[in-house]
Amino acid sequence: MNWLDQVKWDAQGLVPVIAQEAASGDVLMFAWMNREALAKTAELGRAVYFSRSRGKLWFKGEESGHVQTVHDIRIDCDNDVVLLKVTQTGHEPGIACHTGRHSCFYSRLQDGEWLPVDPVLKDPETIYK
Amino acid sequence: MNWLDQVKWDAQGLVPVIAQEAASGDVLMFAWMNREALAKTAELGRAVYFSRSRGKLWFKGEESGHVQTVHDIRIDCDNDVVLLKVTQTGHEPGIACHTGRHSCFYSRLQDGEWLPVDPVLKDPETIYK
Repeated sequence: MNWLDQVKWDAQGLVPVIAQEAASGDVLMFAWMNREALAKTAELGRAVYFSRSRGKLWFKGEESGHVQTVHDIRIDCDNDVVLLKVTQTGHEPGIACHTGRHSCFYSRLQDGEWLPVDPVLKDPETIYK
Repeated sequence: MNWLDQVKWDAQGLVPVIAQEAASGDVLMFAWMNREALAKTAELGRAVYFSRSRGKLWFKGEESGHVQTVHDIRIDCDNDVVLLKVTQTGHEPGIACHTGRHSCFYSRLQDGEWLPVDPVLKDPETIYK
């Protein structure tokens, strides 16, 4: 049985994916993959997601240059969630978020409010030209 | 506007949740929360998920004793994924997975196969009596 067949794809043929920075352990982002995206990720050693809004493959970094090199592909005990260990390239420190921040998880619950607590490292206007 | 209203709940009223060990940065597990689960998690400072298979709140550790103390609740740039920073209690090192392993992400893609690479720390038969 092919490793791609062992993944429990959801009703839309997708699987949730967590991208974690290999060196720091920081959780950078969360996205989705279809079968083709996961196959490409393994083949190329770079993160390829499936954009649900655009309905097509999303080669992470194709516009921003912020490519994710993939070191490790893991799956959970239910075979329905994927974890990538990546190096976030294209900027130092790495920028995974479209807001120009290191991680998409930059807002923290504090006193009953979501507060953005991590800095913008680069103006998104200069990332997406 | 209430912080719970700012979360973009999906069509089932759920949001995906990543639990990360605060001290090590290890991604322990992935689960789902409904509004009540997230409210309870914030109120109690312990992880409360929504079990999709059982259709009810799941107070993590209610059977295993492997409770997750929550230090930080984060949300991503789209307000549709939650990240918890937790301490996994009840065993040293922490066991988050129902298989008795530290993390649910114990299988690694290697030479076209998913290989379990992390050890079982405690026999699940002795965890769930």
